[in-house]
Amino acid sequence: MDGSPIAKRIALAQQGVATLLAYLNSAEYLHRSDDPENCDFVFGNPNEMPLAGFVEAMQKWSVPQNKDWFAYKLNEPDSREAVAESLQAWRGVRYDPEDIFLTTGAFGALAVAINALVNPGDEVIFISPPWFFYAPMIIAANGVPVRVLTDMRTLEPSLQAIEEAVSRKTRAIILNTPNNPTGKLYSEGFLKRLGELLVHKSHQIGHSIYLISDESYSKIIFDGRKHLSPTRYYPHSFLVYTYGKTLLTPGQRIGYLALSPEMPEREALREGLLMTQMVTGYAIPNALLQHAIRDLDRLSIDIPHLQTKRDRMVAELRGMGYELHVPEGTFYLLPKSPDPDDVAFSRRLGRQKVFCLPGSVAEMPGYFRISITASDEMIGRSLAGFRAAIERVKA
Amino acid sequence: MDGSPIAKRIALAQQGVATLLAYLNSAEYLHRSDDPENCDFVFGNPNEMPLAGFVEAMQKWSVPQNKDWFAYKLNEPDSREAVAESLQAWRGVRYDPEDIFLTTGAFGALAVAINALVNPGDEVIFISPPWFFYAPMIIAANGVPVRVLTDMRTLEPSLQAIEEAVSRKTRAIILNTPNNPTGKLYSEGFLKRLGELLVHKSHQIGHSIYLISDESYSKIIFDGRKHLSPTRYYPHSFLVYTYGKTLLTPGQRIGYLALSPEMPEREALREGLLMTQMVTGYAIPNALLQHAIRDLDRLSIDIPHLQTKRDRMVAELRGMGYELHVPEGTFYLLPKSPDPDDVAFSRRLGRQKVFCLPGSVAEMPGYFRISITASDEMIGRSLAGFRAAIERVKA
Repeated sequence: MDGSPIAKRIALAQQGVATLLAYLNSAEYLHRSDDPENCDFVFGNPNEMPLAGFVEAMQKWSVPQNKDWFAYKLNEPDSREAVAESLQAWRGVRYDPEDIFLTTGAFGALAVAINALVNPGDEVIFISPPWFFYAPMIIAANGVPVRVLTDMRTLEPSLQAIEEAVSRKTRAIILNTPNNPTGKLYSEGFLKRLGELLVHKSHQIGHSIYLISDESYSKIIFDGRKHLSPTRYYPHSFLVYTYGKTLLTPGQRIGYLALSPEMPEREALREGLLMTQMVTGYAIPNALLQHAIRDLDRLSIDIPHLQTKRDRMVAELRGMGYELHVPEGTFYLLPKSPDPDDVAFSRRLGRQKVFCLPGSVAEMPGYFRISITASDEMIGRSLAGFRAAIERVKA
Repeated sequence: MDGSPIAKRIALAQQGVATLLAYLNSAEYLHRSDDPENCDFVFGNPNEMPLAGFVEAMQKWSVPQNKDWFAYKLNEPDSREAVAESLQAWRGVRYDPEDIFLTTGAFGALAVAINALVNPGDEVIFISPPWFFYAPMIIAANGVPVRVLTDMRTLEPSLQAIEEAVSRKTRAIILNTPNNPTGKLYSEGFLKRLGELLVHKSHQIGHSIYLISDESYSKIIFDGRKHLSPTRYYPHSFLVYTYGKTLLTPGQRIGYLALSPEMPEREALREGLLMTQMVTGYAIPNALLQHAIRDLDRLSIDIPHLQTKRDRMVAELRGMGYELHVPEGTFYLLPKSPDPDDVAFSRRLGRQKVFCLPGSVAEMPGYFRISITASDEMIGRSLAGFRAAIERVKA
């Protein structure tokens, strides 16, 4: 009898997040919630009770209005229209409802876009440090992930590095703005030049390079800044959005994939995207969430309060001697690790009952990530621990 | 610039259900609900209001009990334990909770099992007529679907045909009992001999052939019969179950994949199955459904009433001259089409305001499928149409 029962591409996908998975299975991570005094900044999970409006929407839309209330749902016309209206009001762009695919959050939207596009051996470019599952998803689709590094001075990847990463096999590029983990809103100059580069390179290699624009955090923006969607600067674009960040309900799984109205291939893609939604395991939000979508679309966590937490933590950490930039959006701070060994430093923080994501487990060595979805109370409680940890390194 | 933007395997998967999709896009299907006098027997969708207990469970479990209520959920320990207890009480088998993977219904469970197992070119055997998405899912995973025909006299596939279908590339076989569309509960004799055959052939080809047992309808059983799980007769087995049939809420998406406690590879599969759940687009039921699972597990539609509808329709249709067997489970009757051209006959029924699934669009030429999730009122209203259609063929 032969070896592993798991398909090779899945085993390879596992290797892509092996250091992250090892961290998640480590004693220090697993026991972080054993002690109520521990401060958990590892993931963008809620640390306060859910929005009252969210609970009301779930209860209200649980009440059936007809026999089909919980029948099979696909990309329901009402949900598509709700998203189209939302995008028009928010971004001033009229998407065709037929080009909107309701998904089980950003996970679903990304899996559908990648699986619908990638033939075996096709390359997909992504920017590192990345969201954890880009590379595993590309590998699981029998594609080849191609990494382009962020320039940590500008917090953008260099266009030259992207140009060099394109080959005849390039099928798509994934961008994420505002960016997890850097908090950077990609600039108009970068996005314009990137759009021009993709037009030029697509022409050169003889087929369209698709842009998959992960805009999961596009409503988590600070300082009155404006989110610029990469989809505005390049026609062959897929927009990925999830309600899981804006509502801080990542366990409920609703979002969407939308084809740019300027995309020439959008009609040719429609049936294939629906098929992909089904064969990947029904990456379509359930009936209740689709009924509730107009209410969900009106809700948001308190962004000014999140900004206050960002400002407090940045000031406190800088005051202690940490080096960090001010994120323009998302849930994350990304300080440099005072000890070049960020795993050792994260362990040191853990001994102070403060838990952060060590950068080395997610392609950001020398940094660690803090989620400011933490409560004010937890932030206050954590400060002595952050101070003690850096003082011991500097001592 | 090149041709289709859709990956080849997805385009191939579409071809696998092209006739079904063409039917679903046909005017006769799309307009079936335009007229309230139409009788729709096409799919196993609800024709009455949802179970009150289901609505209560959704409302009750929408109320957050802690800050993590709608946080990221994986295969939550409480949900796994609930399923393990359910399986123990129902089937007398103690599954290890670690071997239970919560999924977005049977779609999710099947996609996860197939994607976790199949390497490019691996063959997966399935029985025809099949559930619509077996072949598309196998193809989308870069596998090769291998069809074995049901013997329409016994309503089971012949063991000899299965034996002949096995090759060195066989990775898995999918069984569905009780069977959609035949309503057959596979017999103990068949399952025992199949288990022996799979042991023998696995040995011969040098690797385990996995059994994926789709038991979506295993609580939809008539006449006091007993459902026999194929997983009891062969250790290398995956059990697929969904609450979507038992509760008649196919739009809510909760079910599970469970590894047989006797499966030698179960520990080696666990991490890969979790990874597959994530990379396929988060094929994991949302937080609310996982909180509600113990309540959902106690609920069922009225099976004796479903049996009454089966008996009434079988008697009425036979009285009109239709030939059909009595299903032992599931939602479906499968009469022979009085006109050998079942598409033409279905169209004829449509003109009588009666809509059924023509067999030719789903690998059952010469038959048509009736879903008895229809209401009593709809059944009563449909009888004149069924009678008129067969009389015109015989005239």
